[in-house]
Amino acid sequence: MPIDFTNKRNELFHRVQEVNDLNGAASVLIWDQSTYMPTGGSKARGRQLATLRRLAHEKFTDPSLGRLLNDLSSHTSELADDSDDAALIAVTLRKYEDAICIPPDFAAQFAEHSTAAYTAWVKARANNDFTHVQPFLDKTLDYSRRFSSYFTGHQHLADPLINQSDYGMTVATIRPIFGELRERTILLLNRIQEQKQVDSSCLYQHFPEGSQWEFGIEIAKKFGYDMNRGRQDKTPHPFAIKFSIDDVRITSRFSEDRLDDGLFSTLHETGHALYEQGISPSFEGTHLNHGTSAGVHESQSRLWENLVGRSRLFWQHYYPHLQEKFPSQLGTVSLDSFYKAINRVEPSLIRTDADEVTYNLHVIIRFDLELDLLEGKLAVADLPEAWHARYQTDLGVSSPTDADGVLQDVHWFGGLIGGSFQGYTLGNILASQFFAKATEDEPTIGQEMGQGQMGTLHRWLRENIYHHGSKYTAPELIKRVTGGGLLLEPYFSYLNTKYGEIYGFDSTS
Amino acid sequence: MPIDFTNKRNELFHRVQEVNDLNGAASVLIWDQSTYMPTGGSKARGRQLATLRRLAHEKFTDPSLGRLLNDLSSHTSELADDSDDAALIAVTLRKYEDAICIPPDFAAQFAEHSTAAYTAWVKARANNDFTHVQPFLDKTLDYSRRFSSYFTGHQHLADPLINQSDYGMTVATIRPIFGELRERTILLLNRIQEQKQVDSSCLYQHFPEGSQWEFGIEIAKKFGYDMNRGRQDKTPHPFAIKFSIDDVRITSRFSEDRLDDGLFSTLHETGHALYEQGISPSFEGTHLNHGTSAGVHESQSRLWENLVGRSRLFWQHYYPHLQEKFPSQLGTVSLDSFYKAINRVEPSLIRTDADEVTYNLHVIIRFDLELDLLEGKLAVADLPEAWHARYQTDLGVSSPTDADGVLQDVHWFGGLIGGSFQGYTLGNILASQFFAKATEDEPTIGQEMGQGQMGTLHRWLRENIYHHGSKYTAPELIKRVTGGGLLLEPYFSYLNTKYGEIYGFDSTS
Repeated sequence: MPIDFTNKRNELFHRVQEVNDLNGAASVLIWDQSTYMPTGGSKARGRQLATLRRLAHEKFTDPSLGRLLNDLSSHTSELADDSDDAALIAVTLRKYEDAICIPPDFAAQFAEHSTAAYTAWVKARANNDFTHVQPFLDKTLDYSRRFSSYFTGHQHLADPLINQSDYGMTVATIRPIFGELRERTILLLNRIQEQKQVDSSCLYQHFPEGSQWEFGIEIAKKFGYDMNRGRQDKTPHPFAIKFSIDDVRITSRFSEDRLDDGLFSTLHETGHALYEQGISPSFEGTHLNHGTSAGVHESQSRLWENLVGRSRLFWQHYYPHLQEKFPSQLGTVSLDSFYKAINRVEPSLIRTDADEVTYNLHVIIRFDLELDLLEGKLAVADLPEAWHARYQTDLGVSSPTDADGVLQDVHWFGGLIGGSFQGYTLGNILASQFFAKATEDEPTIGQEMGQGQMGTLHRWLRENIYHHGSKYTAPELIKRVTGGGLLLEPYFSYLNTKYGEIYGFDSTS
Repeated sequence: MPIDFTNKRNELFHRVQEVNDLNGAASVLIWDQSTYMPTGGSKARGRQLATLRRLAHEKFTDPSLGRLLNDLSSHTSELADDSDDAALIAVTLRKYEDAICIPPDFAAQFAEHSTAAYTAWVKARANNDFTHVQPFLDKTLDYSRRFSSYFTGHQHLADPLINQSDYGMTVATIRPIFGELRERTILLLNRIQEQKQVDSSCLYQHFPEGSQWEFGIEIAKKFGYDMNRGRQDKTPHPFAIKFSIDDVRITSRFSEDRLDDGLFSTLHETGHALYEQGISPSFEGTHLNHGTSAGVHESQSRLWENLVGRSRLFWQHYYPHLQEKFPSQLGTVSLDSFYKAINRVEPSLIRTDADEVTYNLHVIIRFDLELDLLEGKLAVADLPEAWHARYQTDLGVSSPTDADGVLQDVHWFGGLIGGSFQGYTLGNILASQFFAKATEDEPTIGQEMGQGQMGTLHRWLRENIYHHGSKYTAPELIKRVTGGGLLLEPYFSYLNTKYGEIYGFDSTS
């Protein structure tokens, strides 16, 4: 390429790195806010985050950056096919064009508001008092509608919000998928509920936190999580967060009266962290340096949590280790009983604790409620009731509290309403698609899992998915990896086979 | 005041708040780097800090801010005497005039370098390998000389550096104070060394970290440290750091084979935190929102650590609590023995462990070596040897390692060389001056201390010192509080009386 192009490309790199440094710094502040910040720190933290977000937004939406991007963009046809530079320019331009739709003060105001809302949520949840956070949520809904209004050409108010997390998806494309998924889920659930329930009481004993922590970290490392470039801390709501490719952290929560909560939340967040740690180092500091969409991200957390972490093969190797860690609790529990216990299907109140079969029903409730809120069909004040009603009709359970109802998830209280939840279900679907393709390409994966070896699977995921960061959009990546689009078939094939075997029915009939 | 003034004053407030938000965010990143950051995170962290420092510097040195400040400054004669607004304008202008002397890239380059140097220091110290950090320190010396060269009108290269931390002090004003202090210290030390040594073996037993931690926090709270607006974490080198008036944190280190290290480092950092938590909330977000100088800051850490925390009165009340915490270790040790043990005077290797009498000798060594380095009399490569030599001549001890020699303190490895150490000794002197004045104004302080009550002392310090933040320069504050300047007399009166009593000699003769 001519020197002029190279210079301009370097200028672009330099300028987006500054934006990414500001956002990376903001992520450190958010991590601290969730892990260690004393309660008093909240007000100033909101202001500091607002300042960082506003500056990042200002730097990124500078018209001269737009001119540079358009200029570079006119040269990308001269670049090699599948070039990183072409992707850098295209992805940055797409995000730039989104960003300039947002007024300068919005990012800062919303950052400050969301710290206040998050703090109110922590208190509201602890005290089971929705009214304490309700005015904040009202404001969040207002911010969410305003955010949407800055964009044009969409069919549904939620589309611009969904586009932020799952680029290329819309209410119109998601609804039919969720509709079919829901129907097939209910069929499967009914089938399971006709069988004898499996016993999960072995999971509900006293499991000291220290040992849970150690075992979780052991598995996370075995999955490939590099702890020299990561760490684990405790938060009420587990998450993974990236400050740079060499500093990708997870948080977990542990209950001493149950084993599954801490264990599977650790494996889940490890999946997210593996994705972020595996992105090409050459993308560091650019907008390519993140997982490409919420759905693809979630496919990785769910793949490691469920397709590996809740598989019989995996526990063939690791169950004896777990028994050694908890001899008095699990010494006399068979592998088969343990495997069934961690896969017990039962409609319940809490999304993050839900089994694989009912999980998506939780997500669909939230997705629908988000749309109702945005459309004005549902008022924030009526949200707790609407929540309880949907849980009653969809899952047949009802929570005695809002803490275990609408207050259970942080998303609406730390971010915008809209686009927050669909990624979880898209991820479940994609996890099966990707895993099926991985085992097709590398037939030894299953056997290795049974020997506690994750190397081949991790390498395949790194090469086919992680490495590319946001170079490809989710639809492009899915096509590249699987040769087609999002498909429900591999997911239901997985679910039907697995749960037919566990509950003892013929899933092919 | 006219509306125009009020508008401009508000604009100033708004603009400096942005700068302070960036610096507050940088402090969070530094805290994380020292407490929890995985080793891999260092490179990107350096870049992120560099970006924050550069932007803060750019925002603060914007010529339009200079015009605003000069404009406002021309109106301050119309403001009431002792007005906060006048101080805000004057202090900000002074700092602005300093800041514009520094080239835009310097702050960013140095921030990035200092993260690398800090990381190298951690490794060098762990491996007792000075050569690993030597090239970084060479660069730091170069940065320090360059920093100094940006200023004019000073007598000594170190003066601009000293001015950053102890405004108004110079090599020329410090040298005679340190000279006299050194002479009087040696006289006192000789006198002590003629007496029978006191026994401190009770401090060197096994003290479980958890109980040390709990006791330290109990005392910190009793001193007045508000843990809703602060917290404690562990680091190899303890420090206090402020993100906002409502988030002031301390770090401590604990050794299980000795009691004094963790206990007194906690009380020391608590003193710093009390100062920062006590600043007027109306100064939040401005340049008045920090302790006014290194010396005054250190006067507060040393006052709480030594004049309170190593006093007989304090332990009259708290020693039984400590005995309850460590019954097998201290149950049979008398108050008198314990009091003498924590005040044992003995030349030693580590500054932060040094007793009150020899402490300043450690500081003066560093102060002199800083000047030698800056003057080019001493090369970085020869620093470890020069360090050992000075410890031999001044304190009569020699360290078998550099880890306990030149690598013991973080200062030169995380900041500039010059102006880093004099504040410790200025603080020791001032602590006695302030404490003498406090007990003169409030004669019940001593009696209350003996009952475990710190309220009157804390209130006096808050009203007379903390509240004012950087509103007054250190010389102005000292004059306001004591009616005069820095004096050695109260300090040596305190030391002579205390150690005469402990070692059993007549300090008046």
